[in-house]
Amino acid sequence: MSMIVQSAERLRKLGTEIFSAQGVPKKKAEFISETLVEANLTGHDSHGISYFVSYSDRIKKGYIAVDAEPIIVKETPSSALIDGHWAPGQVTAMRAIKVAVEKAKEHSISAVGTFNCNHIGRVGYYTNWASRQGVIAMMFVNVGHPAVAVYNGVGMVFGTNPFSAAVPTGETKPFLVDYATSMVAGGKVSVARANHEKIPTHWLRDKEGNVTDDPNALKEGGWLLSFGDHKGYCLQFLMELLGAVMTGSRTGLDPDLEPPSTNGVLIVAIDPDAFIGLEAFKQGADSLISEVKATKAEPGKRILIPGEPEWESKKQRLRDGIPIPDETWSQIVSIAKELGVDV
Amino acid sequence: MSMIVQSAERLRKLGTEIFSAQGVPKKKAEFISETLVEANLTGHDSHGISYFVSYSDRIKKGYIAVDAEPIIVKETPSSALIDGHWAPGQVTAMRAIKVAVEKAKEHSISAVGTFNCNHIGRVGYYTNWASRQGVIAMMFVNVGHPAVAVYNGVGMVFGTNPFSAAVPTGETKPFLVDYATSMVAGGKVSVARANHEKIPTHWLRDKEGNVTDDPNALKEGGWLLSFGDHKGYCLQFLMELLGAVMTGSRTGLDPDLEPPSTNGVLIVAIDPDAFIGLEAFKQGADSLISEVKATKAEPGKRILIPGEPEWESKKQRLRDGIPIPDETWSQIVSIAKELGVDV
Repeated sequence: MSMIVQSAERLRKLGTEIFSAQGVPKKKAEFISETLVEANLTGHDSHGISYFVSYSDRIKKGYIAVDAEPIIVKETPSSALIDGHWAPGQVTAMRAIKVAVEKAKEHSISAVGTFNCNHIGRVGYYTNWASRQGVIAMMFVNVGHPAVAVYNGVGMVFGTNPFSAAVPTGETKPFLVDYATSMVAGGKVSVARANHEKIPTHWLRDKEGNVTDDPNALKEGGWLLSFGDHKGYCLQFLMELLGAVMTGSRTGLDPDLEPPSTNGVLIVAIDPDAFIGLEAFKQGADSLISEVKATKAEPGKRILIPGEPEWESKKQRLRDGIPIPDETWSQIVSIAKELGVDV
Repeated sequence: MSMIVQSAERLRKLGTEIFSAQGVPKKKAEFISETLVEANLTGHDSHGISYFVSYSDRIKKGYIAVDAEPIIVKETPSSALIDGHWAPGQVTAMRAIKVAVEKAKEHSISAVGTFNCNHIGRVGYYTNWASRQGVIAMMFVNVGHPAVAVYNGVGMVFGTNPFSAAVPTGETKPFLVDYATSMVAGGKVSVARANHEKIPTHWLRDKEGNVTDDPNALKEGGWLLSFGDHKGYCLQFLMELLGAVMTGSRTGLDPDLEPPSTNGVLIVAIDPDAFIGLEAFKQGADSLISEVKATKAEPGKRILIPGEPEWESKKQRLRDGIPIPDETWSQIVSIAKELGVDV
């Protein structure tokens, strides 16, 4: 499969112009584009610039309200519930994490939820941002359409329901957990499809429940599996309860599938100053990370810290550029032309 | 392997007398005994009455301070850091969850941590209790001795680091997540050893890193694996950061292994009234649980709700009694006789 390579800078500019041309205010267009390009930089192409195309489609269909503002509808000193008003999901999620960090710093810990929230993209963007402000952040997110079977079950029931956590560290390498509670995010199956690649046989079942290595099986009635057997299923279920039931968002099982790919979000942010203190926490985290890195690996393998693959990918792709499958690139070029944006 | 069967009531009384005879104040002895018997009732024999023996040994060695009181050493309206003063871990954990629930009800969300905390037993006991008070509770716990390899690693590095979450429901069946982030808790390997049973080959590696079905391999220099490959490893690592680094407790890697099996604990409690409201949350949770139960299972399998196996086991064992391996029972009888307690 053939690829072209583009610089992050060029892609950011292109995304900003594509969204601006559709009525997204400039600052917001820049921000959405930045979060998507950041996903590619960190190696998560499943959450990257292919959304230039799908978000444009959702704007056209009226699912994304280009200039809507998320509004806090219920609030206490340490909590907030935010109505996203179907603004771009990134705008709602960034508002939510900012409120969460502010409240955690004032009141030790905070919880912020969102509903009427579009797809927020790569969840680790927000928790990582919060950790750089000196707080620990966790995000419990449901995806409002079914894709994953429950444990022992048949058929799509829950969303891919990502979980993310990040903590402050003293080094430039952050500690970042950021993953779907399914074996992989749906976007990773799409990337394999775009790349015409086979997938590992533990990701999916086809529509008859058979083992398969064909990424097309998901669109043809198959389903994803949760990671880690019943233990991953438990987390997947918890995301539905915290992200959706708690906030009044659509659950994975909800038959009403419009708008597509909604996210119900619950953020918990904690100020280490309420415990051991921020500086002591950073030192403790750094020292634990170093100790783990120094432990012995299996022959031919590496010990990686959560967040390290993302950090390494970003360094490399900032230097060498971001590889894009021809198919994805031609879709982006086509939407840009349609909008009169110079590529 | 042969078993004897005892009623929960008789075991509770026996445990209370064993701990009382060693100077644990009556109410606390009753409580510790109750939590251990509850673990057997819910099917988690790994966290049950075998601790009548090991806690007695730790009292004898001075690791458990029988009449110590946990003290809050740092506090804000929504957070507390508790020095357990090496009281029985159950006493410290119950104090912590009570403070967490109280603060969450007053301030929407709370975080409570503990250090100098002995083994707290089955973590789900506390989160389940909190959920019955109408709050959502999560516990991030590290175990202060190494037992589990990190992903791609060789040798024991982290503790078995349990995670638990429970949410209020309207029905008698709670939603309860409660598991080690290793494939299984160390106690489950001990149970297999006591029962002279083989174990599944994905639980352990022996001291040379080989696949094994021998539960003795763990005591002979082997190590547990984390559940769910790198995704479980991420959670396992998060427990070290939140349970240990954040609270100033001993990490899994700490070479100082006395007292044995310490727990660093971070509790997060959230009041649904800050979001959709408690009654609406319970209704939403119940309805989601019913929908999931009604989905189709694989041939010959059942869809289970997290917490349902525990609920079913408790019903059955309250009726039929608790089966105990002869070896475990004879150890309990022997410690009871030593203490002059009538069995």
